[in-house]
Amino acid sequence: MRVLVLGGDGFCGWPTALHLSARGHTVGIVDNQSRRRIDRELGVQSLTPIVPLPQRIAAWEEVSGRLIDQFDLTLGEDFDALVELLDAWKPDAIAHFAEQRAAPYSMKSARHKRYTVTNNLNATHDVLAAIVETGRDIHLAHLGTMGVYGYGTAGAPIPEGYLKVTLDTPKGPVEREILYPSDPGSIYHMTKTQDQLLFQFYVKNDRLRITDLHQGIVWGTQTEETRRDPRLVNRFDYDGDYGTVLNRFLMQAALGYPLTVHGTGGQTRAFINVQDTVRCIELALLNPPARGERVAILNQMVETRQVRELAETVARLTGARVAYLPNPRKEADENELKVCNDRFLALGLNPITLDEGLLREVTEIARAYRDRADLSKIPCVSAWNAERAAAISTPPLQAAG
Amino acid sequence: MRVLVLGGDGFCGWPTALHLSARGHTVGIVDNQSRRRIDRELGVQSLTPIVPLPQRIAAWEEVSGRLIDQFDLTLGEDFDALVELLDAWKPDAIAHFAEQRAAPYSMKSARHKRYTVTNNLNATHDVLAAIVETGRDIHLAHLGTMGVYGYGTAGAPIPEGYLKVTLDTPKGPVEREILYPSDPGSIYHMTKTQDQLLFQFYVKNDRLRITDLHQGIVWGTQTEETRRDPRLVNRFDYDGDYGTVLNRFLMQAALGYPLTVHGTGGQTRAFINVQDTVRCIELALLNPPARGERVAILNQMVETRQVRELAETVARLTGARVAYLPNPRKEADENELKVCNDRFLALGLNPITLDEGLLREVTEIARAYRDRADLSKIPCVSAWNAERAAAISTPPLQAAG
Repeated sequence: MRVLVLGGDGFCGWPTALHLSARGHTVGIVDNQSRRRIDRELGVQSLTPIVPLPQRIAAWEEVSGRLIDQFDLTLGEDFDALVELLDAWKPDAIAHFAEQRAAPYSMKSARHKRYTVTNNLNATHDVLAAIVETGRDIHLAHLGTMGVYGYGTAGAPIPEGYLKVTLDTPKGPVEREILYPSDPGSIYHMTKTQDQLLFQFYVKNDRLRITDLHQGIVWGTQTEETRRDPRLVNRFDYDGDYGTVLNRFLMQAALGYPLTVHGTGGQTRAFINVQDTVRCIELALLNPPARGERVAILNQMVETRQVRELAETVARLTGARVAYLPNPRKEADENELKVCNDRFLALGLNPITLDEGLLREVTEIARAYRDRADLSKIPCVSAWNAERAAAISTPPLQAAG
Repeated sequence: MRVLVLGGDGFCGWPTALHLSARGHTVGIVDNQSRRRIDRELGVQSLTPIVPLPQRIAAWEEVSGRLIDQFDLTLGEDFDALVELLDAWKPDAIAHFAEQRAAPYSMKSARHKRYTVTNNLNATHDVLAAIVETGRDIHLAHLGTMGVYGYGTAGAPIPEGYLKVTLDTPKGPVEREILYPSDPGSIYHMTKTQDQLLFQFYVKNDRLRITDLHQGIVWGTQTEETRRDPRLVNRFDYDGDYGTVLNRFLMQAALGYPLTVHGTGGQTRAFINVQDTVRCIELALLNPPARGERVAILNQMVETRQVRELAETVARLTGARVAYLPNPRKEADENELKVCNDRFLALGLNPITLDEGLLREVTEIARAYRDRADLSKIPCVSAWNAERAAAISTPPLQAAG
């Protein structure tokens, strides 16, 4: 299979490109290195040292004997170049990771909101319009997020993308299956719900083949392939914008600081290990929907955890203590979350759980690289709205120290 | 009330600006004249002669004694200028018409798809982000479309924006009211469904006050205000991209040609007269949702008609005959459409129906200006996809002549 990986220099894109290459597929990476630009903007860097993309690709060739093509173009802008690339490179499939993917970054300021909206929507739309333009039958697998569903399902298990509803008609009740109602919690998540509407339209109008992967929070850094050489190491972000809650806990523990939980820590989230992410992408690419079929939606997650449970687990593994802070996000303090992930299990996914894998992350990454850490970058400073900005600027007394 | 009319030089925006001004509100028009640029691009013009915007505004001052401010900026691009304008001009409300609004234009080519997506979404998002940035309590009334609902409701009446659904939870069934599932029929309509998600998010996160008006197809040209001077006349578009089906019938009849119906003409659509549109906008502006209330969604339409019924009505009034052609749109040939419009009726709208008003349109506009018409611009040539493009390039024999 010939696969173009859009955003192939990023945290999910890079290990996906290597995994697909290792599995014998022909891989091309399209990336404008926007993620590296944002590191410079924020004055942060991955805890793990990331070499320039051409060196990463050369290292992969050294250890595996396999070539990966590299294309530098900006999706959403360089449309003609994208069409030419699809016509010339002739991919069978596209794995699309080329969106700004941090909720806090998307809420930082009006400029960051506007960048996230225009970058994500124009990138996704350009890919769809370009596939139509070429007339080629290219399967598109897109990285979406569990966050499209929102967290207000009253404990009802979240199905894989669609919900049965009953319409009252003059001829009696009629059943319809609709896209699961969305309830995004940030500008970033909102763009993913808008992507869903792009996919629905292009499948209906142009019979494209599209898979949308609603992914949980990815934890873990390395995969079988990225471990093969230090130059292949994957990103580990721990800053307040791009670092997931788990990575920030691991970093705080490695540096001997308390783990900072926002609000009560009762927020429940879905998780998946990065090794499982790359396996899921290949499974999805190997099992595309037929032409004319509706968008295939798969929940790409393994387990759900409350944030305070995660903190307690990391505290247990490392001896750190837990501190509670005001929440910069506008969200419910407590929520239930039950998620169906039957489709990947049926395709053969044998997942890695937090209980099995978290200690390795503590030793292999957080402790090993802690000398490179900048503690000042860990706090979450992007407030969701004016009210939350005021709340985090005057933290309650019990959070001090 | 101080109202900024975004897109105030266009077909709905201009008569709205005049109506609000006539009713004693203070009005400012924001427009980058993109609609005039598109006329030049397509080599078409309004059947009615449209003078430059400053002359229109000066004419209004002459006949009414009322001033309208004019601001030339591009929404979605000139963000800082927009924030400055809101801070300096201090609107109580914004009426937002500033989107590319023709479905066939949005389907013309990849370039037109991309323009519609980036223009419409960035314009709407910039308005929302700018309101938040100023911290001002500005009510936003947005012109949406009945087309967000799609036409596949199995005869169930379309409610005003929201649908009750039941979720099965471990604690038993839970009722939720969700945004009515969308099923847009073109890239243009799709952007309006994406706008809905922008509105939901900004109401939830920033407690903005937003009204979304799901408007039917607007018919009619003049309002009480635009009739007061020839320089105030409103647009009448009859070309295959911007002309509605009714305007194209009126033009064909005035020129002595058959009325061209696409497919069986069994498509059912919702209609509203432009005079009622401007009244609805004022009613919506005078009755904003409270802060913290969900997006107010009103169906801004008066009656539904099948396309072939419309053709027969125009044929009866004018003596024209009807011809059937292949359909360039990907859509169902026949559909039912029942729509609730209780909210505007409750606010006091006393609507004009096609049966009452159509003859005036025939004489006042189509016949009066027919010497300015260009028959070659009437056919719909924008195909929805490759299959439809092939179908319209080889019309069946019975459509000839």
